[in-house]
Amino acid sequence: MTGPQEHAVVVGAGLAGSLTAVFLARRGYRVSVYERRPDPRTAGTAATGRSINLGLSARGMAALDEAGLLDAVLARGVPMRGRVVHRPDGTTRFQPYGVREHEILHSVLRDDLLRLLVDTASAHPDVSFHFGRTLTGLDRDKGTVEVADPAETVEADLIVGADGVFSAARRHLQHGLRADYAQEFLPWGYTELTIPAGPGGVPRVRLEALHVWPGEDALMVAHPNRDGSLTCSLFMAHEGPVSFAALRDRAAIHAFADAAFPDARELMPDLADELLAHPVGRLVTVRTAPWRHEDRVVLVGDAAHAVYPFFGQGMNAAFEDCLVLDACLGRHPDRGTALAAYEAARRPHTDVLADLSAANFTELRARVHRPGYVLAAAADRALSRLLPHRWVPLYTLVAHTTTPYADALARVRRQRRALAAAVTVGTAVAVLAARLSLRGRAC
Amino acid sequence: MTGPQEHAVVVGAGLAGSLTAVFLARRGYRVSVYERRPDPRTAGTAATGRSINLGLSARGMAALDEAGLLDAVLARGVPMRGRVVHRPDGTTRFQPYGVREHEILHSVLRDDLLRLLVDTASAHPDVSFHFGRTLTGLDRDKGTVEVADPAETVEADLIVGADGVFSAARRHLQHGLRADYAQEFLPWGYTELTIPAGPGGVPRVRLEALHVWPGEDALMVAHPNRDGSLTCSLFMAHEGPVSFAALRDRAAIHAFADAAFPDARELMPDLADELLAHPVGRLVTVRTAPWRHEDRVVLVGDAAHAVYPFFGQGMNAAFEDCLVLDACLGRHPDRGTALAAYEAARRPHTDVLADLSAANFTELRARVHRPGYVLAAAADRALSRLLPHRWVPLYTLVAHTTTPYADALARVRRQRRALAAAVTVGTAVAVLAARLSLRGRAC
Ligand SMILES: Cc1cc2nc3c(=O)[nH]c(=O)nc-3n(C[C@H](O)[C@H](O)[C@H](O)COP(=O)(O)OP(=O)(O)OC[C@H]3O[C@@H](n4cnc5c(N)ncnc54)[C@H](O)[C@@H]3O)c2cc1C
Ligand SMILES: Cc1cc2nc3c(=O)[nH]c(=O)nc-3n(C[C@H](O)[C@H](O)[C@H](O)COP(=O)(O)OP(=O)(O)OC[C@H]3O[C@@H](n4cnc5c(N)ncnc54)[C@H](O)[C@@H]3O)c2cc1C
Repeated sequence: MTGPQEHAVVVGAGLAGSLTAVFLARRGYRVSVYERRPDPRTAGTAATGRSINLGLSARGMAALDEAGLLDAVLARGVPMRGRVVHRPDGTTRFQPYGVREHEILHSVLRDDLLRLLVDTASAHPDVSFHFGRTLTGLDRDKGTVEVADPAETVEADLIVGADGVFSAARRHLQHGLRADYAQEFLPWGYTELTIPAGPGGVPRVRLEALHVWPGEDALMVAHPNRDGSLTCSLFMAHEGPVSFAALRDRAAIHAFADAAFPDARELMPDLADELLAHPVGRLVTVRTAPWRHEDRVVLVGDAAHAVYPFFGQGMNAAFEDCLVLDACLGRHPDRGTALAAYEAARRPHTDVLADLSAANFTELRARVHRPGYVLAAAADRALSRLLPHRWVPLYTLVAHTTTPYADALARVRRQRRALAAAVTVGTAVAVLAARLSLRGRAC
Repeated sequence: MTGPQEHAVVVGAGLAGSLTAVFLARRGYRVSVYERRPDPRTAGTAATGRSINLGLSARGMAALDEAGLLDAVLARGVPMRGRVVHRPDGTTRFQPYGVREHEILHSVLRDDLLRLLVDTASAHPDVSFHFGRTLTGLDRDKGTVEVADPAETVEADLIVGADGVFSAARRHLQHGLRADYAQEFLPWGYTELTIPAGPGGVPRVRLEALHVWPGEDALMVAHPNRDGSLTCSLFMAHEGPVSFAALRDRAAIHAFADAAFPDARELMPDLADELLAHPVGRLVTVRTAPWRHEDRVVLVGDAAHAVYPFFGQGMNAAFEDCLVLDACLGRHPDRGTALAAYEAARRPHTDVLADLSAANFTELRARVHRPGYVLAAAADRALSRLLPHRWVPLYTLVAHTTTPYADALARVRRQRRALAAAVTVGTAVAVLAARLSLRGRAC
């Protein structure tokens, strides 16, 4: 950047906002981050929301690596080498994530990650964080934001909306424009539960794996923590016969858990207390356009696209946004062009991610323990071992590569078509050969 | 209704709100209608928005008939017996709407219709209109609305949100609920233009028809008025090489009209003045759910579903909402059940209407004057003459019947499948016959 130092305001010090601050400072901006919540480094978990852990995969790692943070993050996480599927009869099956060594995920605590990001960004002399300050207005043409407590108008050359799924920055950015906007809620919600470590910090289940309890009516996923415990997300309908609303007392909760997760129940001594005390979160998909206004305002992360968590990609996609935005700012000296290039490069792919994440709900809910799914997954793995460069499973492309989401989907569709064609030709040849041999015999 | 008289608040005295007031009064409610704009009966056109005319078709007529208003409306309208398609070379082709006598539409001025509806409703002793009063709040559980100027809180047993596409009632109804909401803007907008009557009130074009100038880059539709004039809606992109934004001066406008609507240009002496003065409207599709809350709040018309105007069904669907809501209130003594039945009966169909209206954009834009379209339309008409009870074109089902929209689409799909099967079988028989006859000859 030439000329006087430009000022960037980042709205939201969540995962995307903090990483964006790091990248913008590196590009020479003076950066002010305004965050509604208190400082996560001093406030403890209660103030930052929930104690949850997230699965970090290739896209998120690539972005953290670019920011020089990957090693520090991995040192705080637990590798997950595959998925342990728990069946209703209490038996389990381990499905490795990939066939190659590096194809693993990492379970990281959101708060740990956030503290590291905020620490790193605020170590930069040009970055300042302002906690407990809520965005209340934004003038997209003047380039100003209004923040509350105390009320103040802040001028900026660039405003980055990183304020999550119900983004106020987005609302102000799009106000009065012909903006497309679609939100869709899943009838299911989620809550966090715990599988504590056993005596002496010994994990009660295989630690270096993601645990899944699939089910039509309720499903649970557990990520490991470094202290030997696992944090579970329980997903089920908000209302109805099997639902959060129906689990009103201990008896109902225990009967439900006995039926749905017989082997998990004994691992979760606090199940009923947690279920009765913890809030139930909502799951929403948001697709919208535009993500930017001229050279002044741009959205990243959940503010730009929210997806159901069933592919474990929300944070990863948010980090990838930051990386692509940074690359576009580097490539195009004109910021309007850079922001347009960023939106054009990202939006088609996050729209596809929304579809994939919704499709994976069906998958996780029902098919993971069905013979058909197991067979298909085994075939996927076998084919990718046989044809390592030509056959790559969709999950591998999404979780273990940085192939843009839409390209990953297109590639898998091509693979499937080629396989179908090969099977058809193969069958035809076999039938022909059989006929010829029959004829040969008949003569 | 038994017990003390219940109070209904209707938000918006547009087409749907005024008709709803008539129906609710008939069911025994005391009805208060709050409308942001001034009284259309005294304020003249300027205050009610634009002077536009709309195509009234079977669904709207059925609802007006039930309210005892159909004859009065038809007396104020102009029948349209078909569509006159204007080709780029200046020639025209008349396509009758249906094959049966009653298959005609009626062009009515929105303001005429609105005044009639407001007059009829306010003639009822239990109905009061409050013009210049804007809804500013709504408590869905308490059953209260806040209206401004002067600020007042009004209690109601039932609140009907009929406040159009950017409904404030809808926003308050859904606030904090897991509501699905999708808005999508067309990159095209529209503006109104006039084809004045010729000397002595003689129409300059065939009056009893809808006129269409199809085009890839701009299209125009004109509805007739009783004074011999026609009101045109010009549709084109907001921005781009051929767009409203590009038509900034008279020279540009005349060059555009000469190329796009050579035969229309000489019929429109005020074209340039109107185009430079009139605002450009936006076109948006809105799909959302829920439409109601318990037994207290419900949405009708554009507040519940907005569609592109290319099937001429927005008002007709809004009127049909009023009719179905009234029927559900009649059928179910419990109002919560009635409102749920109304939403269940209507929403799947208006969602299909949104699809059909978007598809008709493509149709009107390009295909109406292409040989393929003309052939298909002629085949549609020929088949419906040959098989009057078995083959009914989609347009006929949508415009000239009250078959629910989704059922209409399903029926047309069945017809097409049956035709495809018949053609396949017919072709096979013909091929077989030809072969046999060839063989016969060869012997
Ligand atoms: C159950 C569940 C499991 C998940 N698991 C995974 C996973 O395994 N892997 C994965 O990659 N992703 C996962 N995700 C998704 C991931 O959590 C999100 O995609 C990610 O947090 C988005 O980051 P963000 O910075 O865009 O938004 P957020 O993390 O929501 O941060 C937004 C920030 O903006 C602040 N803010 C909001 N409004 C204002 C305002 N008006 N003024 C100032 N500040 C404001 C908020 O306080 C917050 O700090 C999961 C999500 C859920 C719900
Ligand atoms: C170019 C164009 C052509 C069309 N052609 C046709 C056609 O040929 N045939 C057809 O059937 N349909 C047509 N339509 C669609 C039709 O105009 C609408 O579907 C119809 O007007 C919807 O009626 P409504 O009563 O639901 O909403 P509206 O007519 O929009 O009425 C809403 C009322 O609520 C009031 N209001 C809004 N907010 C508040 C508030 N906060 N407080 C109080 N009052 C409020 C408004 O002032 C307004 O009076 C066309 C639309 C367009 C844009």
